[in-house]
Amino acid sequence: VIKFGEGLEQLRNKLLEMSSLVEMGIVRSVHAAVHKDRSAAEEVLKNEPRINSIELEIDRLALDLLALHQPMARNLRFIVAALKINTDLERMGDLSFNIAQSAQSLIDATATTATVDIPAIAGLVQSMVRKSIDAFVEGNVDLAREVLTSDAAVDSLRTACYQKVIASMEKDKASVRPALDLLAVARNLERLADHATNIAEDVLFYVEGIDVRHNSEIGERR
Amino acid sequence: VIKFGEGLEQLRNKLLEMSSLVEMGIVRSVHAAVHKDRSAAEEVLKNEPRINSIELEIDRLALDLLALHQPMARNLRFIVAALKINTDLERMGDLSFNIAQSAQSLIDATATTATVDIPAIAGLVQSMVRKSIDAFVEGNVDLAREVLTSDAAVDSLRTACYQKVIASMEKDKASVRPALDLLAVARNLERLADHATNIAEDVLFYVEGIDVRHNSEIGERR
Repeated sequence: VIKFGEGLEQLRNKLLEMSSLVEMGIVRSVHAAVHKDRSAAEEVLKNEPRINSIELEIDRLALDLLALHQPMARNLRFIVAALKINTDLERMGDLSFNIAQSAQSLIDATATTATVDIPAIAGLVQSMVRKSIDAFVEGNVDLAREVLTSDAAVDSLRTACYQKVIASMEKDKASVRPALDLLAVARNLERLADHATNIAEDVLFYVEGIDVRHNSEIGERR
Repeated sequence: VIKFGEGLEQLRNKLLEMSSLVEMGIVRSVHAAVHKDRSAAEEVLKNEPRINSIELEIDRLALDLLALHQPMARNLRFIVAALKINTDLERMGDLSFNIAQSAQSLIDATATTATVDIPAIAGLVQSMVRKSIDAFVEGNVDLAREVLTSDAAVDSLRTACYQKVIASMEKDKASVRPALDLLAVARNLERLADHATNIAEDVLFYVEGIDVRHNSEIGERR
């Protein structure tokens, strides 16, 4: 039987390992799309099974800790938050996988389209993801609140990017397919930001015991 | 202090209430997109806050049950599954909200585009959602397995729909914007199917204690 303190430490370390893989997935898949780097895309596709298997390990560990130690209050909230964050991280891995597939399709395309705004959106999203995980590991509510306020910025960058890409599709029908791939990259980045926001909300819940979801005072999410 | 049996019953009832709202959201938002029904779209947008507030109630109840009664084995798995399904249902509410917004945009568009295949995809997705929730409430693993096998059919219907819509965009640049809205509807339907699949996986986990995620024998998901 695992000791409770050791179990919590293991849980934290596994979430850190998973979030490193997820962050690397975001960085490399965006690099693949922007710089047409085929090997970076393949690397992201290849890493996905590892993310999936850590997800299963984390769920199993969290469940064992709940069953064997019946934690209360902050420790209980920590474990419930870990379960939720685990789900978010796994889906973030899927989103990088999607971006890597769009990158492959962009690399194969004969027509080209400018990767406008994608690096700027990606930079902001990466910093949100990093902050949300640091906030969890450190129990840092200020970092978590920074993540909530960044979400709106990503949405407006993405909207601007959309308008440009759609205009290019209307001008040149040869660019329709690569432009759709580019829209998919922007959309998947926005969804990554949404997951970082979910994680930040879970951090506030576990540290402060308050539920900020659907609360317009702190930073709106739908 | 709530009794454990009563608490489980409340949890089940709240999840049923939430899933009814989610199902109605899918039906009405797709109806709005296919039949250009503005009032159906508005109805979906208006119902969303109710879904959000039930999400908070369910999380609070599940956490109280964990803290006060320290359940084990199947009861513990039921509550953990309820927490996960709750998250899926809330995001499914968001996806119907997105479809209702695409419907509004399709209604406002001057150009038109055929809503090819959307009713067929929506019908399949609705039945997956219904089956996944029934599987949870009844603890019915056969129903859960049916959901897992339907997911691939949705993916291939969506791919076919995509090809047709993209071809229409390449032919007629006036149709680019409504076609993008239609693609968004198809994509959101596919994501709804993914969430139904998540719910079915959680049912198998809670009933049988086995984790079928990322297990290629039973029905693949990424």
